[in-house]
Amino acid sequence: MLPQWIIEKKRDGLELSGEDIRGFMAGYTDGSIPDYQMAALAMAIYFRGMTATETAMLTTAMIESGSVIDPADMPGLAVDKHSTGGIGDKTSLVLAPLVAACGGTVPMISGRGLGITGGTLDKLESIPGYRTGLSEEEFFQTLETCGCSIIGQTAEIAPADKKLYALRDVTATVPSIPLIVSSIMSKKMAEGIDALVLDVKCGSGAFMKTIEDARELAHALVDTGAAMGRKVTALITDMDQPLGRAVGNALEVREAVEILGGGGPADVKTLAIELAARMLVLAEVFPDLGSAKKECFHSLENGSAMLRWRQMVKCHGGEPDAELPKAGKRTPVPAPMPGTVSAVDAEAIGRASLMLGAGRTKTTDPIDHAVGISNLRKIGDPVEAGEPLCIIHSSNGWKNASEIFQTLENAFQILDEPTEPPPLVLEVI
Amino acid sequence: MLPQWIIEKKRDGLELSGEDIRGFMAGYTDGSIPDYQMAALAMAIYFRGMTATETAMLTTAMIESGSVIDPADMPGLAVDKHSTGGIGDKTSLVLAPLVAACGGTVPMISGRGLGITGGTLDKLESIPGYRTGLSEEEFFQTLETCGCSIIGQTAEIAPADKKLYALRDVTATVPSIPLIVSSIMSKKMAEGIDALVLDVKCGSGAFMKTIEDARELAHALVDTGAAMGRKVTALITDMDQPLGRAVGNALEVREAVEILGGGGPADVKTLAIELAARMLVLAEVFPDLGSAKKECFHSLENGSAMLRWRQMVKCHGGEPDAELPKAGKRTPVPAPMPGTVSAVDAEAIGRASLMLGAGRTKTTDPIDHAVGISNLRKIGDPVEAGEPLCIIHSSNGWKNASEIFQTLENAFQILDEPTEPPPLVLEVI
Repeated sequence: MLPQWIIEKKRDGLELSGEDIRGFMAGYTDGSIPDYQMAALAMAIYFRGMTATETAMLTTAMIESGSVIDPADMPGLAVDKHSTGGIGDKTSLVLAPLVAACGGTVPMISGRGLGITGGTLDKLESIPGYRTGLSEEEFFQTLETCGCSIIGQTAEIAPADKKLYALRDVTATVPSIPLIVSSIMSKKMAEGIDALVLDVKCGSGAFMKTIEDARELAHALVDTGAAMGRKVTALITDMDQPLGRAVGNALEVREAVEILGGGGPADVKTLAIELAARMLVLAEVFPDLGSAKKECFHSLENGSAMLRWRQMVKCHGGEPDAELPKAGKRTPVPAPMPGTVSAVDAEAIGRASLMLGAGRTKTTDPIDHAVGISNLRKIGDPVEAGEPLCIIHSSNGWKNASEIFQTLENAFQILDEPTEPPPLVLEVI
Repeated sequence: MLPQWIIEKKRDGLELSGEDIRGFMAGYTDGSIPDYQMAALAMAIYFRGMTATETAMLTTAMIESGSVIDPADMPGLAVDKHSTGGIGDKTSLVLAPLVAACGGTVPMISGRGLGITGGTLDKLESIPGYRTGLSEEEFFQTLETCGCSIIGQTAEIAPADKKLYALRDVTATVPSIPLIVSSIMSKKMAEGIDALVLDVKCGSGAFMKTIEDARELAHALVDTGAAMGRKVTALITDMDQPLGRAVGNALEVREAVEILGGGGPADVKTLAIELAARMLVLAEVFPDLGSAKKECFHSLENGSAMLRWRQMVKCHGGEPDAELPKAGKRTPVPAPMPGTVSAVDAEAIGRASLMLGAGRTKTTDPIDHAVGISNLRKIGDPVEAGEPLCIIHSSNGWKNASEIFQTLENAFQILDEPTEPPPLVLEVI
């Protein structure tokens, strides 16, 4: 079977066999199938889609391109969470130690930020000393000691996904459900987990702008997980406004630590507990959501989640008590009129954060861990004229100052009537 | 504008601007845009198509990737023909000297065979000494002396097309109307012609199997020609049975020479005159089809077309009187029953010819100029049991003998009732 025949088959809307997919991905991984044939196949998949069976086979082929952690090697039933990415989403930082404190094991492989979307690894690297690249031995050691470890994708885990992801980025084949699903699921399944909770973000700051698109992705993820014999639950959650009150790497770590200390913004805390409790039930640590949630609240209040966080940071070479990077300049964005915040454009806030230097447009761009936006007003918050809608944290010599200021001012809509905060969890699938 | 944004624009069904297309093709030609981005764009074009304006701009971008012959440098109004490829189609060999004999100038850039489709250059190279690669100076000299010259695509003419054509072949993006049209038209327009007659083949032996597909391609070719300010006419002609009675390189040259000598099979002669007369009218050598056709008949009978042929062969270094390669073995395929030939499967005959070694499956395969199939019965021919349906010309040690024999025997359908020969020219566009 020549590679172009497999591309043709998909182009013409036929279902690819396991042999087709395995052969193509093996060739792509070892370099005998060049990037241009993979690019043509990816675009054909964009237009024709894939069945649940094809998506599961593609996921398996990507897993088999690298090394796999055996779930049997894990200290307990391993469970993880994956978010499709949003603005101000520091939930993983809270979640991993929280689930560990409640008796779960969380071997989390995370990513870096790209475009307006932040990345958990970038956030963690604002902690002086924190290493996201552990050896497999260090990773297992950290899991044994702390019950959780957050690392980057190693060269050994799903190398085909790593290669394909970079190719999709430059060939306009990113927004394809089966390619998104196989990319997410291959990395997660290779971690040796038994169960997975997915946080599919929906709204202006998310990849999926509408509930229909979010639902389609959530179903595809859950179906693929099921086809591969894993327990998977997906939540569709709101990303029309940023999560929490801070956006930017060190600023978000500070907010996560506040929550681990029993305080912090209600939405991040609620989402962390909703996700953590489902992880604990899937991992069979608790029999039902009610008892799991109760234990989560308890662990945040009695300091046991914070203890796991501090242990994990130390195991990764970080110093939990070290001062985090601070930006040189703080600029409040005052409200132009009094009223109630009725809408916050998450995408605009993401763009402002990107312009400040907190994110990157190319994978090779450097980022500034100190900069970002804090004290964000949320939908439903009352505000007086001149009170800050948010505070900009910038380096002293910041560029595009007026554009960033304008973007942020326009991101908030203020009305002269009360507005209810929107629901956080939109659907459970 | 990043290349991936242009791919995305086409992927989402938007119309590309002249700047998008020019920039992308310039980058592809100079190598700054890699094959994988071109492959993704080609697949997006396969699914989304292109408007007439976009196709004309793509054609222009491909022309501008190389050197262009100025129509003003031509000795007279230059006119050419292009066929989309068929089985036994030796029309170009007759047509070029015929149009030259009637007062036209034919600067013809031809191609090689691939798959079941034969190539004019391969046919000409069965003539001892014939060089298809002339310098630009030799090409002009030949046009001055003979009024016609048939050469291969040089590295200077439309290099972007050469590169893209090879890429399409391995990325399942060959059957896309705008890509086919820009490939054909860029080569032809770069030749410095004023007018073009297209022979769009339709049937089992052609790329376009149905009249609807052939019509779509013909209209796209004519529209693109018009958008570029050229006079273009397209004929849709039958390719359900092979053209003429011979398939294979030297065998087809012999048949072409028979027609130039006033004899030969009626269908090839008719098609050559239909196409030649239209070329002469578009080139304003004759005011109407009737007078042009009359002159064509005349030139075939009085030997002036033959004279041009002999001159052209000599100008290309060939010897018009040299003996053409002959195959070592001749095997008749006898009719299994008496009756009238009611159908001949052109595609099967093309496959048999390919298996004999007259064609190639990869562009790097060698070909055998001597082998092929002759004395083909045509639809409407009566036949007695045991009389040959065709004669196989093979090398002495031929492989797959029984498979080839079987393929040819099955290619002919014989019925016990008279059948009319099908029309040759199906439509004029």
